[in-house]
Amino acid sequence: METRGMETRVCRLYAKGDLRVETDEIAGPGPGEVLVRIGAGGICGSDLHYFQDGGFGPIRVREPIILGHEAAGIVEAVGEGVTAVKPGDPIAVNPSRPCGTCRFCQAGQQQHCLTMRFRGSAMRQPHEQGLFRDLIVVDEAQCVPVGPGVTIGEAACCEPLSVALHAVRRAGAIAGSLAGRRVLVTGSGPIGSLCIAAARHAGALEIVATDPHAAALETAAAMGATRTVNVPKQTLAEYEADKGWFDVAFDCSAAPSAIHAALATLRPGGTLVQVGVTGDLPIPINMIVGKEINFVGTHRFHEEFAVAARLISERRIDVRPLISDSVPVEDALGAFALAGDRSRAMKVQLTFERKTNK
Amino acid sequence: METRGMETRVCRLYAKGDLRVETDEIAGPGPGEVLVRIGAGGICGSDLHYFQDGGFGPIRVREPIILGHEAAGIVEAVGEGVTAVKPGDPIAVNPSRPCGTCRFCQAGQQQHCLTMRFRGSAMRQPHEQGLFRDLIVVDEAQCVPVGPGVTIGEAACCEPLSVALHAVRRAGAIAGSLAGRRVLVTGSGPIGSLCIAAARHAGALEIVATDPHAAALETAAAMGATRTVNVPKQTLAEYEADKGWFDVAFDCSAAPSAIHAALATLRPGGTLVQVGVTGDLPIPINMIVGKEINFVGTHRFHEEFAVAARLISERRIDVRPLISDSVPVEDALGAFALAGDRSRAMKVQLTFERKTNK
Amino acid sequence: METRGMETRVCRLYAKGDLRVETDEIAGPGPGEVLVRIGAGGICGSDLHYFQDGGFGPIRVREPIILGHEAAGIVEAVGEGVTAVKPGDPIAVNPSRPCGTCRFCQAGQQQHCLTMRFRGSAMRQPHEQGLFRDLIVVDEAQCVPVGPGVTIGEAACCEPLSVALHAVRRAGAIAGSLAGRRVLVTGSGPIGSLCIAAARHAGALEIVATDPHAAALETAAAMGATRTVNVPKQTLAEYEADKGWFDVAFDCSAAPSAIHAALATLRPGGTLVQVGVTGDLPIPINMIVGKEINFVGTHRFHEEFAVAARLISERRIDVRPLISDSVPVEDALGAFALAGDRSRAMKVQLTFERKTNK
Amino acid sequence: METRGMETRVCRLYAKGDLRVETDEIAGPGPGEVLVRIGAGGICGSDLHYFQDGGFGPIRVREPIILGHEAAGIVEAVGEGVTAVKPGDPIAVNPSRPCGTCRFCQAGQQQHCLTMRFRGSAMRQPHEQGLFRDLIVVDEAQCVPVGPGVTIGEAACCEPLSVALHAVRRAGAIAGSLAGRRVLVTGSGPIGSLCIAAARHAGALEIVATDPHAAALETAAAMGATRTVNVPKQTLAEYEADKGWFDVAFDCSAAPSAIHAALATLRPGGTLVQVGVTGDLPIPINMIVGKEINFVGTHRFHEEFAVAARLISERRIDVRPLISDSVPVEDALGAFALAGDRSRAMKVQLTFERKTNK
Repeated sequence: METRGMETRVCRLYAKGDLRVETDEIAGPGPGEVLVRIGAGGICGSDLHYFQDGGFGPIRVREPIILGHEAAGIVEAVGEGVTAVKPGDPIAVNPSRPCGTCRFCQAGQQQHCLTMRFRGSAMRQPHEQGLFRDLIVVDEAQCVPVGPGVTIGEAACCEPLSVALHAVRRAGAIAGSLAGRRVLVTGSGPIGSLCIAAARHAGALEIVATDPHAAALETAAAMGATRTVNVPKQTLAEYEADKGWFDVAFDCSAAPSAIHAALATLRPGGTLVQVGVTGDLPIPINMIVGKEINFVGTHRFHEEFAVAARLISERRIDVRPLISDSVPVEDALGAFALAGDRSRAMKVQLTFERKTNK
Repeated sequence: METRGMETRVCRLYAKGDLRVETDEIAGPGPGEVLVRIGAGGICGSDLHYFQDGGFGPIRVREPIILGHEAAGIVEAVGEGVTAVKPGDPIAVNPSRPCGTCRFCQAGQQQHCLTMRFRGSAMRQPHEQGLFRDLIVVDEAQCVPVGPGVTIGEAACCEPLSVALHAVRRAGAIAGSLAGRRVLVTGSGPIGSLCIAAARHAGALEIVATDPHAAALETAAAMGATRTVNVPKQTLAEYEADKGWFDVAFDCSAAPSAIHAALATLRPGGTLVQVGVTGDLPIPINMIVGKEINFVGTHRFHEEFAVAARLISERRIDVRPLISDSVPVEDALGAFALAGDRSRAMKVQLTFERKTNK
Repeated sequence: METRGMETRVCRLYAKGDLRVETDEIAGPGPGEVLVRIGAGGICGSDLHYFQDGGFGPIRVREPIILGHEAAGIVEAVGEGVTAVKPGDPIAVNPSRPCGTCRFCQAGQQQHCLTMRFRGSAMRQPHEQGLFRDLIVVDEAQCVPVGPGVTIGEAACCEPLSVALHAVRRAGAIAGSLAGRRVLVTGSGPIGSLCIAAARHAGALEIVATDPHAAALETAAAMGATRTVNVPKQTLAEYEADKGWFDVAFDCSAAPSAIHAALATLRPGGTLVQVGVTGDLPIPINMIVGKEINFVGTHRFHEEFAVAARLISERRIDVRPLISDSVPVEDALGAFALAGDRSRAMKVQLTFERKTNK
Repeated sequence: METRGMETRVCRLYAKGDLRVETDEIAGPGPGEVLVRIGAGGICGSDLHYFQDGGFGPIRVREPIILGHEAAGIVEAVGEGVTAVKPGDPIAVNPSRPCGTCRFCQAGQQQHCLTMRFRGSAMRQPHEQGLFRDLIVVDEAQCVPVGPGVTIGEAACCEPLSVALHAVRRAGAIAGSLAGRRVLVTGSGPIGSLCIAAARHAGALEIVATDPHAAALETAAAMGATRTVNVPKQTLAEYEADKGWFDVAFDCSAAPSAIHAALATLRPGGTLVQVGVTGDLPIPINMIVGKEINFVGTHRFHEEFAVAARLISERRIDVRPLISDSVPVEDALGAFALAGDRSRAMKVQLTFERKTNK
C-alpha cells in the first residue's frame, strides 16, 4: 500500500476564533509508527478555551495548532516492527507521550513528565499538534485497541473517561476505596458525568450530582447519579448538618460556589478532588482547616487509558448517554459553537468521513 | 400486645455434634430493645466448626450455646423509646455489640473491641447466645431495616456480605481503590463468592476465582468472577510470569496451596487479604519479602453492615445465586450436614415458621 | 485538706480589648476531678484574636470568657476515685474534652466531636472557660503527667506541640513518613517553630523555614530548620525549578503569598498541610490541579497530647528556645501586647505565683 | 593517567566455602564510567549465606562470583562525560542498577526491576560481580558522594542503611509516620540495629529491641533502642495484654519465635515489616486475621541510597557503634568466620590497602 503523499484534512486554530479546516500532506508510518484514519474526535473544554479565549490561565495559543486529543479511528497502515495492532483494527488514540526517563516518569508519575508531549496541547512550544484530522501517524504505544462491539464515537471517549478514572483513583489513594461511600459531583458536564460513571463503577453508594442545566442533570442520572440537584435553584444545605455528609466530592465546575458547597457538605476528614481547572479562586481556609479536608488536584491520567478502553469496549461503563452531537468536520465552527452551549450540548464530536479504499 | 412468657424454639449446641432444637421462654422487649421474629438464619463456617469440631483454634465451646449470627426477620414488638423500627418492619440483625468506650472503639476499630459481645460466638465466656431461634430480643441498634423488595433469606446475607465488604475495604486502605484492578479470589465458598461480588461492585477489572468444586465456581461466575479456575486440576501458573499479575488477592480458603498460589501470582507490591482463618500455616517468607507483598488480615466488620443492608435491599449486589438451600429449623441436623458438604451446598439457611398472629 | 471556698485569680475577657484579672471563688474537686494549681499558661494566636479582634472568622466572643488553653501546673488535690495523679504531681492540662459517643468520637476523630468542650474556646455557647487562672478543677483525664526535669513553662507547651505533632501526623497519613523528605515551613512563629521541631523529630531531611522576622528565623533554626529564608526579602524561587522541590509543606502563616510560594515549590504529588487558619483566601486552582497537590487541613489533636508530654519531658523536643517571655498574670495586658508584637516575641507565657502551702 | 592494564585483587567465591583472593587485570573507565579505589566493604548476611551454604532459598552460586555489595572508596579516575564526581572524591557505591524501562521501573518500583543487575548477587545468571576488590569500574550513577568528615568504613554502611530506611518507608506507607509510635525490632544484628536507628530517626517514641546476644543488644541500645530484651531468657509477654502494644514491628531475624512474638504483641491493625528473609515459616494465620495485622515485606531500596549517604555524612545517623571489626582483605576467610559468629561480631568490614600514588 502506498501511503506517501496522502492528503488529510486538518482542523487548525490560528488564533482565538480563527479555526480553519485545511488540507495537509502526510507521509506514511515509519518504523514503530502507525497510520490511523480518525473516525471521531470529541471537543473538550480545553479545545473550547483555545478557540473561545485563545488559551486558559498561563497556557496560550502562540502558533497555529491542530486541536483535538479525544479521538479514535481505524488502523490504516503500520510501520516496520509494529505488532500491537494491524490494519483494520479499531483503536483509541492515547494522546499522551511521556519521555519515560525524567524523574517523574521514573517515579510512576508520567502525567507530570518534564517533557510531556500531549497531542493538541499548547502548554509547551512548539505546540503539540492534535488529532482533529482524517489521517495521522502516531507511535505504536499510542494505539489502544477497542472492542468491535462499540462505535468509534464511544471509543473516542476513552480519553475523557481516563481523566475521570484517574480522578477516582486519586480519591482512592487519599480516602481508600469509594465502595460504600457517599459522593458529591459538582458540575455535571462531560467530565462530571464521566466522574459520576467512574464513581458508580467504583461502588459509590450515593452520588449526588449538581448542575445549573437540566439537560446535564438528565445525563448525570443516566450515567449513575442517585440524585440530581439543580443549583442554584435547589441547594445542598441539608447535607451540611452535623459537620457534613459526603465522604468524597469531585468538583468539575471550577465555580467558587460549587467548591464552597462541596467543602460545606463534606464530613470532617473528607476529600475534595478538584477536577475542573481555572486560575485563582477564593477558598474558605477555615473549612479546609477546621474540618481537616483533603483538597486534592487531579491531572490527566496514565495507566487509566487502557482501563478506560476495556470498560468502554465491554460497555461496563456505557458512554452513549454522554455523546449528544456528532458533527462532520466540515462544520467545525458549528460544532465548536454547539459545544460551547451547555444548555444544549454535552459531548460534541467531530466526525471524519471514511474513505472508500478501506 | 402481650409478649411476656412467649415460647421460642432455639437451636442449641451442647458439645461437638450435639445440636438440639429446644423450647425456651422469652420475655418481651425492655426499654431500647426490640423483639424480632427471625425468618431465616444462614449457617456460617464458624457454626460448622463449633458443630463439627467443638470450636476452631483456641476458641472452644465450653458451655451450651445457641448458634447463629447471620439472621433476619420481622419486628414483632418494640420497647419503650425505640424509634428506629416499628412492628412489621423487615430487618437484618447486626450480631455485633461493641462496648463503645474501650480504646479500640474510641479509635474507630470497633471490630477489635476489648469486650465485644458478638452473638453466637464462643470466643468469650460466658458465650454470647446466637440468633437461630424464632424470637429474640435485641438492642435497637442491632436492627437494620431492609427494603421490602427482597426476601428475608436475602436479608440474612447482610452479615456475611458485611464481612466481604470489610475485606474489600481493607484492601482499599492498603492498596487504594479496587477500581480498574486485577483481583484473585482463592476459595469460592459463600464468603469467597461474596468477596467476588464486593470486588466486582468496587470496580475490579478482572476477577479470577478458584475452587476445587464445580458448583462453587458456577456460583462464583454468577456473583461476578470474570474467569474461574478449577484447582488443582487447573493452575494459576500463567499468572506468575514477570513477577506476577494480580494487584490484590483475597484468600478465603485458608489452604496453604491457595495462599502460595496467591503470593506467586501477585505482582510486586501487591496485597493479599487473608479472609479465611486457621492456625499456623507454612508461608513462603521469601515471596513476602522479595516481592514486598502486603499480607493483611481482615476481621468481621463495623460500619459495613448498613452498607450491606442497602446493597442487598436495592439488589445492587444480588445474593440469590448464593443461597443454595433453605431448611426448616426442625431439621437443623440435616441442614448442618448439608452445609458441611461443599460439593453440594453453598449457603444453607435455616428457616423459622412464621406464626399466624402477625 | 479544705479546698472549698478557695479564691483564684482569673484572666477574663469581657469584649475586644477588655481583659480583666478578677478574683473568683472555687470549690474543691468532685469525684473523678482534680484541683490544679496552674504555673504557666501560654498565649496562643486564638487568645490574641479574641483580645485584639473579639474573635476570628465566624467565632466571636459573645459572653465573658476566661482565656487560655496552653497551661500546666501542680496537682493540688484530687477528688474521689482519682488514681492517675496525686497531689504534688506536675502535669500538663489537656484542654480537650470530646464527648466520646458521637459518630466522630466513635470513628477516632475526637477533634471533630460534635459537642467538643475545648477550654478557652468561644466556638460554642456557652463558651468554654479557659485555663488562665491560679486554680482550676479539671477532669482526671485532662491531667497528663510530665517529667520532673522540665519546667512548668516547658510543660505548658504540650498543647501547641500537640497541634504540631498532629499536623505532622496528617502529613504522614497522606504522604507517608516525613523521614528522608524535604519540608518547607512557611511562617515560623510559635506553631511554625513547633512544626519545624516535629518535622525534624520525624526525620525530615531538609527543613526550609520562612518568616519576615529575623527573631522568628533564629528560633526556627534553633528548633531544627536546616535553612531559613527571610521573606519577602529573599525568595523561594530557586525551589520552583523542574516543577518543584519540596515533598511536604506546612503553612503556619495563612498568608496568600506564603501559600502561593508553597504550592509553587512543592513537587507534583506533594502535600501542603494548612495549619494557619483564616477566612477566604485566593488559591491558584491550576497549581493544585496541574501538580496534583494534596492541600490538607489540620485541626487540633487528640492522642498526640500524651506523646507531646513525653517528648517534652524527655527533652527529645526541647521547647526552651521557643519561650521568649514569662509575664506575671498581674500584667496580663502587657503580656498580650507583647505577644502581639511578632518582631519581639515568640511564645509569651503568663505565670501564676505559687502559694506557699505546697 | 594510565589506567589500562592495572591489577586489582578480588575476593572471589568459587563454591560453598571456597573463597579466594586473586589478582585480576582491569581496564580504565569508559565514557560515563568511574574507576573507584575501594576502601572498605561490609560483609552482609547474603555474602555469608553464599560462603557458608552456597546460597539461600532458590538463589545458588552457580559460577564464580566476586562477593560484596556494601562498599565505599575514593574516585581514582573518571571516563568521558562524567560530571557527578571527580578523582579524589569519597563515594559510596550504589550496587543497584535497574534497567529504567521495564514496567516496574516505570512505576517507581525499581527494586523490582525485571532485569535488575545488583552487584555481588547470584540471583540472575550470569551472576553480577561484586565490590570486594581494590579497584572497580562502575557507572557514574552508582557513585554517591559522601561527606569528608566520615570514614570510608562509615560510608560503606550506606547500603545496609538504605535497606533499613526502605523498611521504615514501607512501614510509613502502610501505617503512616513512625513519629510517636511504639516500635518493636526483633533481631538486633546489623540490619536490625540499622532499623532501630532509622526508626529512631523517624521519631519512634519507644523502640524495644530483642536478640539472644548481649553484644547485639548493646549495639541496639547505642543505635537508639529505648529498651532491650534478651530473648529467650526474657520475654515480651507483658506487651500482649489488651490485644497488644506495638504499632509497628520490624522482624530482622526470620526466626519463627520472633515473628510469633511480634504478631502477639502488635496491637490490632498494627504492621509487621518483614526484613529478614528465609524460606517457608509457620505463621499463625489466626493472629494475622483476628488482629487485622499488616504483614508486609521489604526488599532492598531505591531512592533511599542518597538519603542514607546524607544521613551518614552528617552523622545524623551515626553508624560507628555498628562496625565491630575491620579486617584486611588478605584475611578474607578470617573475616567471614568472624562475621558468622554473632556472639562476637556485628558488622565486619574488609579493608583494602590504599596504594601510594593517591
